[in-house]
Amino acid sequence: MVKFCEMDSKALRKYREELLKRYEDFKGQKLKYDMSRGKPCPEQLDLSIDMLDITDYKGLDGTDCRNYGGLDGIPEAKQLFAELLGAEKDEVIVGGNSSINMIYDTIARAMSFGVAGSEAPWGRLPKIKFLCPSPGYDRHFAICELFGIEMIVVDMKSAGPDIDAIERLAGEDEAVKGILCVPKYSNPDGITYSEEIVDRLAGMKTKAKDFRIFWDNAYAVHHLFGKGDSLKNILKACKEAGNEDRVFVYTSTSKISFPGAGIAAMAASKSNISRIKEQLSIQMIGPDKMNQLRHVRYFKNLKNIEEHMKKHADIMQPKFLAALDILSAELGGREIAWWNKPNGGYFISINTLDGCAKKVVAMAAAAGVVMTPAGATFPYGKDPRDRNIRIAPTFPSLDELKEAIEIFCICVQIESINKLLLEK
Amino acid sequence: MVKFCEMDSKALRKYREELLKRYEDFKGQKLKYDMSRGKPCPEQLDLSIDMLDITDYKGLDGTDCRNYGGLDGIPEAKQLFAELLGAEKDEVIVGGNSSINMIYDTIARAMSFGVAGSEAPWGRLPKIKFLCPSPGYDRHFAICELFGIEMIVVDMKSAGPDIDAIERLAGEDEAVKGILCVPKYSNPDGITYSEEIVDRLAGMKTKAKDFRIFWDNAYAVHHLFGKGDSLKNILKACKEAGNEDRVFVYTSTSKISFPGAGIAAMAASKSNISRIKEQLSIQMIGPDKMNQLRHVRYFKNLKNIEEHMKKHADIMQPKFLAALDILSAELGGREIAWWNKPNGGYFISINTLDGCAKKVVAMAAAAGVVMTPAGATFPYGKDPRDRNIRIAPTFPSLDELKEAIEIFCICVQIESINKLLLEK
Repeated sequence: MVKFCEMDSKALRKYREELLKRYEDFKGQKLKYDMSRGKPCPEQLDLSIDMLDITDYKGLDGTDCRNYGGLDGIPEAKQLFAELLGAEKDEVIVGGNSSINMIYDTIARAMSFGVAGSEAPWGRLPKIKFLCPSPGYDRHFAICELFGIEMIVVDMKSAGPDIDAIERLAGEDEAVKGILCVPKYSNPDGITYSEEIVDRLAGMKTKAKDFRIFWDNAYAVHHLFGKGDSLKNILKACKEAGNEDRVFVYTSTSKISFPGAGIAAMAASKSNISRIKEQLSIQMIGPDKMNQLRHVRYFKNLKNIEEHMKKHADIMQPKFLAALDILSAELGGREIAWWNKPNGGYFISINTLDGCAKKVVAMAAAAGVVMTPAGATFPYGKDPRDRNIRIAPTFPSLDELKEAIEIFCICVQIESINKLLLEK
Repeated sequence: MVKFCEMDSKALRKYREELLKRYEDFKGQKLKYDMSRGKPCPEQLDLSIDMLDITDYKGLDGTDCRNYGGLDGIPEAKQLFAELLGAEKDEVIVGGNSSINMIYDTIARAMSFGVAGSEAPWGRLPKIKFLCPSPGYDRHFAICELFGIEMIVVDMKSAGPDIDAIERLAGEDEAVKGILCVPKYSNPDGITYSEEIVDRLAGMKTKAKDFRIFWDNAYAVHHLFGKGDSLKNILKACKEAGNEDRVFVYTSTSKISFPGAGIAAMAASKSNISRIKEQLSIQMIGPDKMNQLRHVRYFKNLKNIEEHMKKHADIMQPKFLAALDILSAELGGREIAWWNKPNGGYFISINTLDGCAKKVVAMAAAAGVVMTPAGATFPYGKDPRDRNIRIAPTFPSLDELKEAIEIFCICVQIESINKLLLEK
């Protein structure tokens, strides 16, 4: 393919005519495709439907899961998540249906009461800062913004966030209290942090004694291709480095069973967990144990979950492959866009030429293709180079997806040409 | 029955011998009965088990309840709770399994961000005070204590809390930001607030512009005898008084369907709800809509819920009657204890002679009968007269309950005699 920058204005204009014709054709069809959120498709949800067949709700230890109690989850659910997260059973709290709610709650409690080792509630300090590997997860950034936590952008590199920058920032500024990250199949780049990065995060010197890593391991078993990436166990790494209280780990079955009715869990050191349980006992009586029992009876252990995830991959793989094929066919070699080929997770992250992302997303929306708003992958919704776009290819059907990606690629090309013509 | 205070020391000592013998007999049986929490018994939980038979999870508007979304609940669940709470559909948020968590969250948000009309987050002010009708619900008090909210005891009277005191305290002190109450079949007294009290709470002048009533209507349909009490609609009363933002109303199906896996809801003015939804959208993606759909498909409307509650009453009534009978037989006319006969709710509240409650609860515990800790029904766990004990008669079987109440009555009599002898 010819690079756009090597085409003259006339050729670019002519090619833009073709693209605009294709665009108008699609627009005339009044399509409505949603690639905005990492949302499983209905066929993926059908995979777990048999877990609802359970007819008795007595837990292994005799607990009537229908009644009150069980603040930190039923023992068999704690065991399952301990296996999934590489934690001890008493380092785990199994909660309700939302890991983002667990993260929010942990941060809210830190703001109101501090964490173990805090000299004051974070909300009482003049300034709190979090390190935010970017592009990253918009919901993480929104929580920080709501609580007035200043976000510092840390660049994502090929093996994870810029660890030199993290060590420097956390090492020199006491106001830097945390880092929020998706360490495996990162949202949106699909990058899994290297062993070195995990070790350095676990071991680095931090100016704040109560520095915390919020480790949102949302895609722990969500491989797309082959056996997938593996992520070093940060709980163990922190223990070995003598910083066992440093990390809060989160995960959920939202993209294993049901996004709206899965179960979420967190893991941390025993002293972290014991402090959280004390506060949690005042916040609630207990999570939905019936739903926990449904999940444990159905999945039983990590091996079964991994088998189950292959069925998800069977549904998702063709969509990712189709999307990547179309991206290559339409944009490959043009030097106007660069994207990753993730081994797992839910996203394809694409960088356009600088200054094009917002326009591309708006143009795609006008043709009925809804994408995550441009900028959403950066703190405060501000992508400094206005180039990153997150594609979530899982929810549409394969046929819908192909059209949606084609429309998207047309928009990328048109806006790239517009930019290049202006610069000529 | 002869009043204890009219018996001479010798007669009291002799009678105490008999009581101690009965006590030691029970103690020798190594019983284990729990009357500590308002917890439905297994037969009550069986009443709702058919709701789990649902096989499709498509909502009325086509929503796939298995997937993400639906921040404020599915429309049909909002409709059901609107009917239950006497609210408009868009004044309702349907949440997860815990109303106490919704109350906690509302208070936590008020502390971090303020409520509509606040000049500052409550947590940034030098002092926040809540009015606490007492005896009251220990979980309410625990939330206040966790957030450092100063609790002011307001006495419960026969028709609700001392409204003169409330008007005075809320009217003169800007730091008084709220009142936390269970207005129907109050925990533990079983009192339903009169129309006058509801109207005066809704209409009173408050020094704080952002004063809030936290209206924990936990026992809205939980009648024990006959058609039960009725409670004036405080949402309407606040609207009529021009104070529509003043109240947050909460309820749940915890004691209608499953304590551990029911659904909770709140209602408030449209401006309160819209503010909460904005913050909630950052806290979570949505509640468990599958469980909401189970509930709505099963109960359909308020009339069916009311029919269903009669089945609960059929199970609970004999327990309350048996407990009340034994209290009368053992303690009636002795002038050492006074208790209510509630029309609904989950508790019998008993007042002993001053200074006896802690000793009675400890003595009952030593014979295997676990009660709510004495003092728990007051802020900071401190009952100024050490006399109030909450009996929760629902969880034990009828036979267990009869023994447990008998043991309890023996302890009340022994400790009363101990006190009277010391005073003679």
